[in-house]
Amino acid sequence: PLTHQECLALLASSSIGHLAVQVGHYPQVFTVNYRLDGQVIVFRSNAGTKLQAADHANVAFHVDHVDPVTRTGWSVLVQGMAEDVTNHRADPNRDRAEALDIAPWVADGRSHLVRVIPAHITGRRIGPGAAAFWTLDAGSYL
Amino acid sequence: PLTHQECLALLASSSIGHLAVQVGHYPQVFTVNYRLDGQVIVFRSNAGTKLQAADHANVAFHVDHVDPVTRTGWSVLVQGMAEDVTNHRADPNRDRAEALDIAPWVADGRSHLVRVIPAHITGRRIGPGAAAFWTLDAGSYL
Repeated sequence: PLTHQECLALLASSSIGHLAVQVGHYPQVFTVNYRLDGQVIVFRSNAGTKLQAADHANVAFHVDHVDPVTRTGWSVLVQGMAEDVTNHRADPNRDRAEALDIAPWVADGRSHLVRVIPAHITGRRIGPGAAAFWTLDAGSYL
Repeated sequence: PLTHQECLALLASSSIGHLAVQVGHYPQVFTVNYRLDGQVIVFRSNAGTKLQAADHANVAFHVDHVDPVTRTGWSVLVQGMAEDVTNHRADPNRDRAEALDIAPWVADGRSHLVRVIPAHITGRRIGPGAAAFWTLDAGSYL
């Protein structure tokens, strides 16, 4: 398992993650590009299924990196509540989310800003004898 | 959106995916290495949280590939039922899962074999004007 600080450093080192949310009888997973506002995940969404399912729902946000050759890597999981802050007025959380200037990757504009407020952050290394292979320096990821 | 055949071809082109399953109030996501038995996802697991949560549960299995430089890629989602077939006797499904010879990446053996039997398979391209950028030839992924 990774420490809280290691998890945050790894979250900060990446920009692509997976949003998981239960929709009806099944989990749904969406690939999104994100940025961090402190420990909060922020991503853009259009007004579709993803947003409808996630707004005010308990979600998971998963980020990993795996090297299939060496079979080593890491995986960090944020569990928390997602909130669409797009139309919030006089909300500094919304202002900071907007200021992150997250680029929409698709042409539909992705005009909604969603924050995932973490309740639990956990992570682990992947691979054989992973602990011995890693000398993780948080500074090198920030 | 991708066609069913394109989704299967992309699933076959990769070996690392994300298992999502609802555990209590939150989705959980695990990074696993997998292989396909036809349209069925097969992966190894040890006897921990992942297996307990997934066995006979409705799960999602997500595989994606994203190039952060070109901001293009794809994402395929399999929704279905997960089943631990390790101790099945005289079950050809179990025999085929075993014959896939999936390498455990960790030292604990990962002695359980889990199949995800798909109910829905969907996928989409990621990126601006994605449709125009892609001339997907299924053969090149198989």
